[in-house]
Amino acid sequence: MTDTSPTHFQSFDATSSPDQGPPRLAFLRKEIAARGFDGFIVPRADAFQGEYVAPCDARLAWLTGFTGSAGFAVVLREQAAIFTDGRYQLQVRLQTAPDFAPMDYPSQGLADYLIEALPKGGRVAYDPWLHTAGQIVQAEAKLSDRHINLVACENLVDRVWTDRPGPPMGRAEAFPEEVAGKSAAEKIAEAAADLAAKHHAAFVICQPDELCWLLNLRGSDVTHTPLMHGWGILYATGRVALFAEAEKLEGVDLPDIVSLVAPNQMGARLTSLKGPVRLDASSTPQAVLETLRTAKVKMEKGDNPLSLARACKTQAEIAATRRAHLRDGAAVVRFLHWLDSHEPGSLTEIDCVRALEGFRAETNALREISFDTIAGAGPNGAIMHYRVTAESNAPLLPGQLFLIDSGGQYLDGTTDITRTVPVGAVGDAEREAFTQVLQGMIAIHRARFPLGRTGRDIDALARAPLWAAGRDYAHGTGHGVGVYLGVHEGPQRIAHISQVPLKPGMILSNEPGYYREGAFGIRIENLIVVREAPDLPGGDDRAMLDFETLTFAPIDRRLIVKEMLSEVETSWLNAYHSDVARKIGPLLEGEAAVWLQAATAPL
Amino acid sequence: MTDTSPTHFQSFDATSSPDQGPPRLAFLRKEIAARGFDGFIVPRADAFQGEYVAPCDARLAWLTGFTGSAGFAVVLREQAAIFTDGRYQLQVRLQTAPDFAPMDYPSQGLADYLIEALPKGGRVAYDPWLHTAGQIVQAEAKLSDRHINLVACENLVDRVWTDRPGPPMGRAEAFPEEVAGKSAAEKIAEAAADLAAKHHAAFVICQPDELCWLLNLRGSDVTHTPLMHGWGILYATGRVALFAEAEKLEGVDLPDIVSLVAPNQMGARLTSLKGPVRLDASSTPQAVLETLRTAKVKMEKGDNPLSLARACKTQAEIAATRRAHLRDGAAVVRFLHWLDSHEPGSLTEIDCVRALEGFRAETNALREISFDTIAGAGPNGAIMHYRVTAESNAPLLPGQLFLIDSGGQYLDGTTDITRTVPVGAVGDAEREAFTQVLQGMIAIHRARFPLGRTGRDIDALARAPLWAAGRDYAHGTGHGVGVYLGVHEGPQRIAHISQVPLKPGMILSNEPGYYREGAFGIRIENLIVVREAPDLPGGDDRAMLDFETLTFAPIDRRLIVKEMLSEVETSWLNAYHSDVARKIGPLLEGEAAVWLQAATAPL
Repeated sequence: MTDTSPTHFQSFDATSSPDQGPPRLAFLRKEIAARGFDGFIVPRADAFQGEYVAPCDARLAWLTGFTGSAGFAVVLREQAAIFTDGRYQLQVRLQTAPDFAPMDYPSQGLADYLIEALPKGGRVAYDPWLHTAGQIVQAEAKLSDRHINLVACENLVDRVWTDRPGPPMGRAEAFPEEVAGKSAAEKIAEAAADLAAKHHAAFVICQPDELCWLLNLRGSDVTHTPLMHGWGILYATGRVALFAEAEKLEGVDLPDIVSLVAPNQMGARLTSLKGPVRLDASSTPQAVLETLRTAKVKMEKGDNPLSLARACKTQAEIAATRRAHLRDGAAVVRFLHWLDSHEPGSLTEIDCVRALEGFRAETNALREISFDTIAGAGPNGAIMHYRVTAESNAPLLPGQLFLIDSGGQYLDGTTDITRTVPVGAVGDAEREAFTQVLQGMIAIHRARFPLGRTGRDIDALARAPLWAAGRDYAHGTGHGVGVYLGVHEGPQRIAHISQVPLKPGMILSNEPGYYREGAFGIRIENLIVVREAPDLPGGDDRAMLDFETLTFAPIDRRLIVKEMLSEVETSWLNAYHSDVARKIGPLLEGEAAVWLQAATAPL
Repeated sequence: MTDTSPTHFQSFDATSSPDQGPPRLAFLRKEIAARGFDGFIVPRADAFQGEYVAPCDARLAWLTGFTGSAGFAVVLREQAAIFTDGRYQLQVRLQTAPDFAPMDYPSQGLADYLIEALPKGGRVAYDPWLHTAGQIVQAEAKLSDRHINLVACENLVDRVWTDRPGPPMGRAEAFPEEVAGKSAAEKIAEAAADLAAKHHAAFVICQPDELCWLLNLRGSDVTHTPLMHGWGILYATGRVALFAEAEKLEGVDLPDIVSLVAPNQMGARLTSLKGPVRLDASSTPQAVLETLRTAKVKMEKGDNPLSLARACKTQAEIAATRRAHLRDGAAVVRFLHWLDSHEPGSLTEIDCVRALEGFRAETNALREISFDTIAGAGPNGAIMHYRVTAESNAPLLPGQLFLIDSGGQYLDGTTDITRTVPVGAVGDAEREAFTQVLQGMIAIHRARFPLGRTGRDIDALARAPLWAAGRDYAHGTGHGVGVYLGVHEGPQRIAHISQVPLKPGMILSNEPGYYREGAFGIRIENLIVVREAPDLPGGDDRAMLDFETLTFAPIDRRLIVKEMLSEVETSWLNAYHSDVARKIGPLLEGEAAVWLQAATAPL
């Protein structure tokens, strides 16, 4: 019998409790009615707009049962709805009670829903810490015409969640300067100079990943991402006020220019600011904006002074992350070899998750996994963000595709890799689709483009081979990745909606996919880093960028229809596999090393 | 000796008079100083923001000598500058006196120039008819921080341009309903319903091409585009007030719902409007906005109700334009055969322009050419919007590339085609670059993409083969095209800056290129029309679009490096050439027919 006990970093509990939704909904509606509101908005987000929320902030899951990483519920007096994007359309229906009507966000949005459901003069409450100022402005712009009002108030879920856990108090640690490539003092000086140049007095740091990056700190307040929850004020004078519990930072040396202040003093510090404060509405909670506005502190919209600086990695960070990826690649290859050495049908999804975490743990460098491993056999592979539970756990059956998307958090880097492998012999439809996905992935790996282009401008290169076959995938092609920080970080993306020019040093994933509901899922993912492209003979005198590959592990040759690949595509793949063999081979021994040689042989 | 007298539709005069710039500048500065202004803005645009301006509106050319189709000058008391985009950087330096500093727009913009040049409180005048409301808002947003003011006033160039011609009084005619596919009454009813649905009372029609499209009219007020200059007010009641000289419309039947009103009554009609008037700031002159604002007529921003309706052609329009393209294709093939039957070195650029116009005129259906033919041999081909003059006229020398970009205006359609051909044997560098351009063009022809994507989202497909070689081109990949209307029309484009989703019925050009200054230019251009893509076996249940090809003429096989093409690219080219032979062959006779067979043989 298969062991479904948790691994060190991942549990297989079916944490969703859709049955508890209706009674909790009833309690919440009492609170709503008692205050004379028509509804309350329950986002998945915490005050930090982070991907992982602490147990005390998992309000959406507590209320609805939905455990995905993005979405929100709207609870009205007579009806309720839950809004999730394309990734979660299947999952949300499985995890929530029918009391919550599932909505396909963003084609179905909050404003339209409220306008449809409520009469003029309707009042819907929200917790201003859980929504950014930008989100509120946008929603109000659509609602004000129809005389529907959004009203900030205390969190009504917290009123009815009687056994709600306390806030996280994880210990923080210093992040090595030799990995960061810059001291906190240098980063602070650069960001402060950016404020001073625009005559701004201060910037409120509302995102823990930016705070941790700036101060060369890492924490342990949420799972999977080494974040310390906290807030900061960056002053144009070159000083920082850090709002965090002193207990978390015991034994950590902070530079002199950083003052540790108790979080409950943040309001007072904000109201005493001399403006203008630079405001980045996309990351600042509405509550912070309201505090500043009430105190009549002048605000000016402007670019977040930390966002691009953090996104464009230093040479030291890139060198470190290369090392982390080789270590991680060796663990992944050991896993793929292990997987391949089992009879088709003899393993389950959880077996694979356990084994992969085990190989990563054997490196003795694994701090955490980057996210709950997505391991989907056959139809489960088509659930884009599938998380296996003891209940859903399926065997890998002969003829199926098995998709496994995972990553490791190492002190020197964050990894994220997806491979799709055949279980025994698979059909032609699967191999054809796999090859199309691979062609898209190769197009991004090979892409070279002028400075100034955004991820949006190259997204089509990844999709064209699928588009030509009448296919597409309902997720972005790539997301930003940190260095021992968030496995999803902005602002860079390769996606239809990305408007941020790509810059040297940005780390991105390259992960096209294809999903056939009820049948199979395919995704292949490597991490890449933007760099200045070398000049080419005969090329223009024109600044161009291209990508360096960070991830090295074989792409399953058995799934490739060789005749579909062009010569340049085949050459790219053979060169990549030759790199994999050269870089990862020496880190392996015995059968795994032999297996890698075969797995990376030229097509 | 070569004949350089004008053709019926194109002159070869060097119309630029850079030497007259300095004295005219001095006169203009007197007017500026007399009113206490610090400067005056002279755009190339007329009040209709059209591509072709009437002689009375050619103020920028009169003042500076620059005859390109886009740009503006700024005249200050001590300095002056002329702003043009990437297409015109070479031309502007040749055509203007050094008194006008050439600026690279948009990386160098109006606001930055004024902020740099003027002290706080500076006042720069402009003619509010020649700038859209959107342009003024945008400029003011950047300037107001620095306390520089834009002041609307009469046109100061007109004060000093003593022999300025009168306004155009070209005759208008009805456009056949069987080509339009819809009566004016139907179009008006649909647009009025759009206004009524949003509770808007009226929309001011400020673009002659939209006016002509709506009313099924064509005019002759400017060269190359069959436009009637005029204005309109579309009322939500389903009526239209047309402001145009009655003399132009003699003998033209207008529907009962259209009232012809003298243009000098337009101000009174605007001020008597009951709002809300829907405002499209991108097409409405600042003068119209000011008139409405002064009269306290309520305005609401909204989408131009004519723009998309005009852009998405009817089935009748598409069928007509197909016919026009076959006729035009046959003329182009006769020309290419004629060109090929001359000894390398025996022809000049003007010879080619004359011959091509002659072959088009022989169709007995040519109303006008779509634009001055761009015919550039060798280095002239690298000047993207080169217009040959008697002075610049160059022979086509052996070893050179010859680029010819031209089009015809027929009652049933507007064409636009570019071909690049070798003069004798050409070098490998030219053939390699040509093949890369062709690969990009084929990628757009073959593109299939989900509904909702914009031209921006597919632009990279056309550029990727050049990008891979470190190359790019400084113009869009495609522009919208009308049906016996503008050869450049919006809102659809295939370009980095295009945010408009592509829709069935939109006609676009597909014209990647490559230019090496001082050496050669390459461009290949076909027109295409967006359509619903047919379902594919194994494809998703997903609405997708693709392109139908409109233009049929051979792409020079001698310039193609066959080994660089993938199998699918070669197949596309062979299938295209087979279509060219099948569709155009029957329209030819004698040697041209034989020539076409060889020119379209499979690679």
